Amino acid sequence: METLRRIIERNDTRRGRIFDLGIQALIVLSLITFSIETLPDLSENAQRWLRYVEIVTVAIFTIEYALRIIVAERKSEFIFSFFGLVDFLSIAPFYIASGVDFRSVRVFRLLRLFRAFKIVRYNKAIQRFHRALMIAREELVLYLLVTTMLLYFSSVGIYYCEHDAQPKEFASVFHSMWWAVATLTTVGYGDVYPVTTGGRIFTFVVLLIGLGVVSVPAGLVASALSKAREMEQ
Amino acid sequence: METLRRIIERNDTRRGRIFDLGIQALIVLSLITFSIETLPDLSENAQRWLRYVEIVTVAIFTIEYALRIIVAERKSEFIFSFFGLVDFLSIAPFYIASGVDFRSVRVFRLLRLFRAFKIVRYNKAIQRFHRALMIAREELVLYLLVTTMLLYFSSVGIYYCEHDAQPKEFASVFHSMWWAVATLTTVGYGDVYPVTTGGRIFTFVVLLIGLGVVSVPAGLVASALSKAREMEQ
Amino acid sequence: METLRRIIERNDTRRGRIFDLGIQALIVLSLITFSIETLPDLSENAQRWLRYVEIVTVAIFTIEYALRIIVAERKSEFIFSFFGLVDFLSIAPFYIASGVDFRSVRVFRLLRLFRAFKIVRYNKAIQRFHRALMIAREELVLYLLVTTMLLYFSSVGIYYCEHDAQPKEFASVFHSMWWAVATLTTVGYGDVYPVTTGGRIFTFVVLLIGLGVVSVPAGLVASALSKAREMEQ
Amino acid sequence: METLRRIIERNDTRRGRIFDLGIQALIVLSLITFSIETLPDLSENAQRWLRYVEIVTVAIFTIEYALRIIVAERKSEFIFSFFGLVDFLSIAPFYIASGVDFRSVRVFRLLRLFRAFKIVRYNKAIQRFHRALMIAREELVLYLLVTTMLLYFSSVGIYYCEHDAQPKEFASVFHSMWWAVATLTTVGYGDVYPVTTGGRIFTFVVLLIGLGVVSVPAGLVASALSKAREMEQ
Repeated sequence: METLRRIIERNDTRRGRIFDLGIQALIVLSLITFSIETLPDLSENAQRWLRYVEIVTVAIFTIEYALRIIVAERKSEFIFSFFGLVDFLSIAPFYIASGVDFRSVRVFRLLRLFRAFKIVRYNKAIQRFHRALMIAREELVLYLLVTTMLLYFSSVGIYYCEHDAQPKEFASVFHSMWWAVATLTTVGYGDVYPVTTGGRIFTFVVLLIGLGVVSVPAGLVASALSKAREMEQ
Repeated sequence: METLRRIIERNDTRRGRIFDLGIQALIVLSLITFSIETLPDLSENAQRWLRYVEIVTVAIFTIEYALRIIVAERKSEFIFSFFGLVDFLSIAPFYIASGVDFRSVRVFRLLRLFRAFKIVRYNKAIQRFHRALMIAREELVLYLLVTTMLLYFSSVGIYYCEHDAQPKEFASVFHSMWWAVATLTTVGYGDVYPVTTGGRIFTFVVLLIGLGVVSVPAGLVASALSKAREMEQ
Repeated sequence: METLRRIIERNDTRRGRIFDLGIQALIVLSLITFSIETLPDLSENAQRWLRYVEIVTVAIFTIEYALRIIVAERKSEFIFSFFGLVDFLSIAPFYIASGVDFRSVRVFRLLRLFRAFKIVRYNKAIQRFHRALMIAREELVLYLLVTTMLLYFSSVGIYYCEHDAQPKEFASVFHSMWWAVATLTTVGYGDVYPVTTGGRIFTFVVLLIGLGVVSVPAGLVASALSKAREMEQ
Repeated sequence: METLRRIIERNDTRRGRIFDLGIQALIVLSLITFSIETLPDLSENAQRWLRYVEIVTVAIFTIEYALRIIVAERKSEFIFSFFGLVDFLSIAPFYIASGVDFRSVRVFRLLRLFRAFKIVRYNKAIQRFHRALMIAREELVLYLLVTTMLLYFSSVGIYYCEHDAQPKEFASVFHSMWWAVATLTTVGYGDVYPVTTGGRIFTFVVLLIGLGVVSVPAGLVASALSKAREMEQ
């Protein structure tokens, strides 16, 4: 019992590390098969294989879940912990989907992505990123508010500049928001862009302001990351 | 009277916080209805509802404005303060528009956006952002000057490179400026781009310089934000 | 004489500041008329006015140049100094162009842009920017070298991935460089982009590396600007 | 012997510097001819000249390689060192390609790019960049992991939003990844973009998060560069 707990809950033994790596590999495999299933024109053979992989994956995750409950000192605490719920949600859709009809399967398929959260248990990178986000939380909320306001006023402005010239692309303030998102983030797909002189000057002004707002989080996260690193040491 | 003042001007009581949240919710509601009104093909029913919402909103804002004047210790000082003027401009267009004919309504509609400024009273995020902009003011002005010069010379340069090959897209230095804005901010809509070898090499050189200029404000604002945070504490 | 020198060379008197502002306004006017001249379909009337403005501008700049020589203590030193040469080149093209035939005028027109450099004399922003560039010089040269190498290898890589699928867009390594410039700077006009799976994966890898290289100068310039500010104080 | 070693291995004599510059010029020339060879419709004359340049380049590199072995104190150590192998791989393809048939030449041509690594021996900029990458290694790996996860979930999300509306562009999660790469890096070619309201809102959310993730390495590399500079001094 004590040996089993050590293998499952910790990774300071060789077998513990193998167990951890095995589970992680299975999570990645599961995400890859999820993607492959979306490919159009899959042969029947491929579909059968994907189903086999899915059954084996769920079987192993179920055993893992059972083992984690068995070795947990306070069982109910584990079951209702973040990782306990994630473990449960990683396998539950499979068992429920077996009993229902075909059409709702697509939603259940999406629920399988919960398995990705299982990897957080092992991933120090994501844990540090999470800590960095906590450090810069206040600034990031501020940034979201200012960005939202900037997007709103850009949309209203460009709507008034361009609506008459391009009544379809800039049909309403909501339609104009798509332009504002693509422009202020500097993605610039090129599906909507101003054609009037007024709209272009407005775009210029908005971008000058936007460059000082929208790329701010990069700096915030970068400095928070270095703080998070110091805190770990 | 003292209790009323406390509810309206401060938020250290429960009723004061409810009052503040109510006004804020109304401002957001007002901005949303403003956007909905721009949607094409609105049903008569929807238009009637939007008019009702507008009347109720203005009524409440008018009451709020009256109350703020009543509780203000120095009345004329409040009326001509920034927030006093904003409160006035948030309701004035509605009363004036009722007396004039239909065609000029569109401009008055736009004036309703002044209501957005009312939210600044409650929003600490925008206040801190404003303080950060004040800290980095000098650098930001410098950045605007250098960016403007860079844009001007890029426009002249690309005009000479591309005018003969694309006389329509690069018709003059002013037309070329649109290309310069879209390129130096790295938005790149793709509606205008150089096609000659000279123009492409010029674009490359301009972008190498531009990347060191145009994204500078992000760093300036980020560091000013952290200074503004320190100053608050 | 001493009073004249004070007006022209310094700006600690009221008349000195007016003189400086007047020259600066004239420079900006000159750059604007330069741009207007490139507009297609200018009326004869407008062209005549632009010619008048040009003659007046050159006349004033000539007087300014003469005055600066007169008040300079070491005349030859001023004439061959940076600003002396800029002042000379700002007016010389006009006098030379009067004597030659029409076709070469276009090149002379471009030389008028030298007038923009005159403004550097008054512009503290550009002077500080120049100082910042000096501070980060070494890193910026390094960045140019690494960027050039990254661009070269990206071009070669995408050429091998995409040449067979798009023989026209990726006709040679040189043609592919245009794609590399537009992609690594994240401008992404959308006139050339990879269509093969190999080319897309290559683009992904190149962009992951590129994001860590191409936006570095923004950080370098931002920190150099704050150093330059400290040095001024 | 001692004089020769000094010329080849060090650059503290005048002849040593000339030797170094000569080799570097030859490397750059070699990379340029490599690019020229990819130009379509090369005349026979040009092809002949390119072949001559190639033969001379390889001849000089062979002599250089031989000299470096001769002057090396521990010969086998040099041969199996990084730069020894690079020197070997720079000339080997030429000799092997002479003996085989025409079709595989294209792959051998690509191997000639190994010559670019020869320049690292002389380039302090790249050495410092390499040191900076070592300093920020841990953070960069973290960034790659988080970026990969973000890309994966963006692809899955947009696939579910857009697959029904654009079954060709968003045919599978793998196809959607191309959109995710072009969007999160803000390149935005404009060949694929969401058209549904759901997809556009999803793009907005993903970009808000993405801007705080994808541009982080620029900050990391910039600060690592300044640390690397300090370490050198």
